[in-house]
Amino acid sequence: MNKADVVVLGGLSGITAAMSCRRHYPDKKVVIVRKEGTVLIPCGIPYIYGTVGGPENNVIPDGLLENNGIELVKGEAVEVDRSNKVVTMKDGNTIGYDKLVFATGSVPMVPPIPGIDKKNVYPVKKEFDYLSELYSELKNVKELVIIGGGFIGMEFADECRKGRDINVTVVEALPHCLQMAMDNEFCDEAQNKLAEAGVKILVNEKVVSILGDEKVAGVKLSDGRELKADMVILGIGAIPNTELARKSGLELGFRNTIRVDRYMKTYTDPDVFACGDCAEKVSFFDGRPSGVMLASTATSEARIAGANLFSPTHQNCGVISVFSTVINSRAFGVAGLTERSAGEIGARIVTGVAEAPDTHPGGMPNSCQTKVKLLFAKDTGVILGGSVSGGKPVGEMVNVLSACIMHRMTADDIVKFQMGTHPALTPSPIMYPIVNAACKAVIPLKG
Amino acid sequence: MNKADVVVLGGLSGITAAMSCRRHYPDKKVVIVRKEGTVLIPCGIPYIYGTVGGPENNVIPDGLLENNGIELVKGEAVEVDRSNKVVTMKDGNTIGYDKLVFATGSVPMVPPIPGIDKKNVYPVKKEFDYLSELYSELKNVKELVIIGGGFIGMEFADECRKGRDINVTVVEALPHCLQMAMDNEFCDEAQNKLAEAGVKILVNEKVVSILGDEKVAGVKLSDGRELKADMVILGIGAIPNTELARKSGLELGFRNTIRVDRYMKTYTDPDVFACGDCAEKVSFFDGRPSGVMLASTATSEARIAGANLFSPTHQNCGVISVFSTVINSRAFGVAGLTERSAGEIGARIVTGVAEAPDTHPGGMPNSCQTKVKLLFAKDTGVILGGSVSGGKPVGEMVNVLSACIMHRMTADDIVKFQMGTHPALTPSPIMYPIVNAACKAVIPLKG
Repeated sequence: MNKADVVVLGGLSGITAAMSCRRHYPDKKVVIVRKEGTVLIPCGIPYIYGTVGGPENNVIPDGLLENNGIELVKGEAVEVDRSNKVVTMKDGNTIGYDKLVFATGSVPMVPPIPGIDKKNVYPVKKEFDYLSELYSELKNVKELVIIGGGFIGMEFADECRKGRDINVTVVEALPHCLQMAMDNEFCDEAQNKLAEAGVKILVNEKVVSILGDEKVAGVKLSDGRELKADMVILGIGAIPNTELARKSGLELGFRNTIRVDRYMKTYTDPDVFACGDCAEKVSFFDGRPSGVMLASTATSEARIAGANLFSPTHQNCGVISVFSTVINSRAFGVAGLTERSAGEIGARIVTGVAEAPDTHPGGMPNSCQTKVKLLFAKDTGVILGGSVSGGKPVGEMVNVLSACIMHRMTADDIVKFQMGTHPALTPSPIMYPIVNAACKAVIPLKG
Repeated sequence: MNKADVVVLGGLSGITAAMSCRRHYPDKKVVIVRKEGTVLIPCGIPYIYGTVGGPENNVIPDGLLENNGIELVKGEAVEVDRSNKVVTMKDGNTIGYDKLVFATGSVPMVPPIPGIDKKNVYPVKKEFDYLSELYSELKNVKELVIIGGGFIGMEFADECRKGRDINVTVVEALPHCLQMAMDNEFCDEAQNKLAEAGVKILVNEKVVSILGDEKVAGVKLSDGRELKADMVILGIGAIPNTELARKSGLELGFRNTIRVDRYMKTYTDPDVFACGDCAEKVSFFDGRPSGVMLASTATSEARIAGANLFSPTHQNCGVISVFSTVINSRAFGVAGLTERSAGEIGARIVTGVAEAPDTHPGGMPNSCQTKVKLLFAKDTGVILGGSVSGGKPVGEMVNVLSACIMHRMTADDIVKFQMGTHPALTPSPIMYPIVNAACKAVIPLKG
């Protein structure tokens, strides 16, 4: 029997957990066990179909493991014997462990729509061969229907249209695409950008059945209309991949995620940890269970888990939820709560909105108008969230907001924020919209 | 006699102070008095000569004042009678005030080099007509010498070469250009980028005299060499413009800046405030006087001053010093201390360095390798500073660092930082270099 100090089950967050463990415990033997021969960058998957040009350009190189002294075992773990601390593989091989990490991620949700198992209906699995097949098939597609206008759906729609003679339609059940993630004014902006690129968007609309014989030929909508389709992509969400954890007797919690404490240690077994999409999360804002699944959350948890394996080191403060996306060259991002999600937890808020070009003067090349909306708690002035739309810097602007949120800065603090500015890189120091949005909130906060 | 509630003397930080005052005290009459007919965006001045194509494209529109209900009086204030609270203008007009704000900025330092007053020797004044003249004269220049390899000098060198058949030479007295601002490895990178663009850089070298008859014809270096020059631009620093403050009996402090407390109120007079380059500053890190002059610092101080005029509202926590620049399309930025400046105040530090492309996968279009160096206090793990080089997102990455520094995050906090990531906008969540640089520092910090 093979024996390691640490066995990590899974992909992206598994790599990060293993690297974190190696950094903190350089003497420990760390093994990653995973089914996939090749691990894809998960957030890069939609970009395979447009910008990056194929799945082979979106791979996390195994050299990263080698360089960090991490052993890779390719194969499927099918059983965990926690009393004897042994993982059994599908091929019968076993690996003993001292500490075990579940980083088994998530799998796409497949709704029980009649005809969902027809050929050319693709839930977005994170599997290289599967996504390569999707890539080849897409070449022959004239009518693409995407079910779900969340991030995956919107990004797939935007990428699949690039360089292809294809009609793309997004079908979203809610009144707005991206509605779970952003406030209406930003959803509208994103939808309009995608529509400008020629993508058709249907909201308040459900696909009730998939039409065709063996292969998809169309979809039927809740209003009775039928759309032609020679491919359907499903982007309606993901569910945690925790079947092995359940079989191993680990306690599952919210939406079948593995119950963990702030050290990412499972409730059930002090020698078993979990991180990423398969692990239970609580919100930074109210401590209640959170359904957020983001690569950035997963890797943050993985760093925490890896550091804590042999000694409690880092605590998880809960999910802030920070993300960004790009729709037809315009970037959108949110850190923390939106006005909608703040309303859902009953927070009394004050908002401030400011806009400015992201260069100064605005006449610099590649300047992009940038909009910032900040939310503060009415009673304390503490920042609860921020939304941004604009150009490439949006990706880091939401990270400025994440830092402000993590340390519970107030509007007064952000008014005094010492930002660096430069003509080609940022808005002007007079107009810097994160600061100016806070300035606008300060007076109503005091009122 | 004209009478206002608030009179603000000066340009950029004056506008921001006036706007802040109007926000906090909407009933007050606010007047800005300034000599300049047109106010330029100060950080945009070098870009007049290349990217933005002329001074008229780098102007702060007076509409900003109008929209905020701020009155503008063009003219030079020549006397302040603090006992009667009256400002006298050069044309003899007077304006009474209840509160007065000095935002008189700085003027370029002109070293006592023989020949410095010859024609075509240009200190960088922030004056529209003066800079327009420089713009016209530059058309006839074949040999440009820039004295001083700080930000102004490097940015002028980079911009003046663009689209011109011109030889540009930067003469820097220190061993590295940008040495007051960045650590050597980043200085080297910036110098190499500028040299790649065809600019000649001489370090450890001084200009000892300016040659020529009425007009400059060359410069003589400390090693005896002579360089041809038909224009010389001086970028060796600035001194506070505080002559009127001195004449008004206000106490001056470090390098003749106006002494102010944490509310930006002058030591001398409770009804007189100061902000920006003319106001004394202390370092965030040790409370000692700081010579930093940055537009972002100035506007932060201006927001504080404006809010405090009639009631103490915001306190200034001291200068973090956050800036960014672009040299031949590569961006550089620093927030807080460098290894060099940390050494100067005797801080014991641990550093962490990480690199990653600013997209993921790195094969995405416009990807740029990004390098981050973080500094932490050895004893507490608190972040003291960070340096970044890379592409456009560097401008906001230093602002992420500024937020971390302002709230005295530790390396442990930054390891757990929940950053948002996106393929087209940021490094990958596994490689995010701010987090990974902190990860690398964590172990030596505990050791």
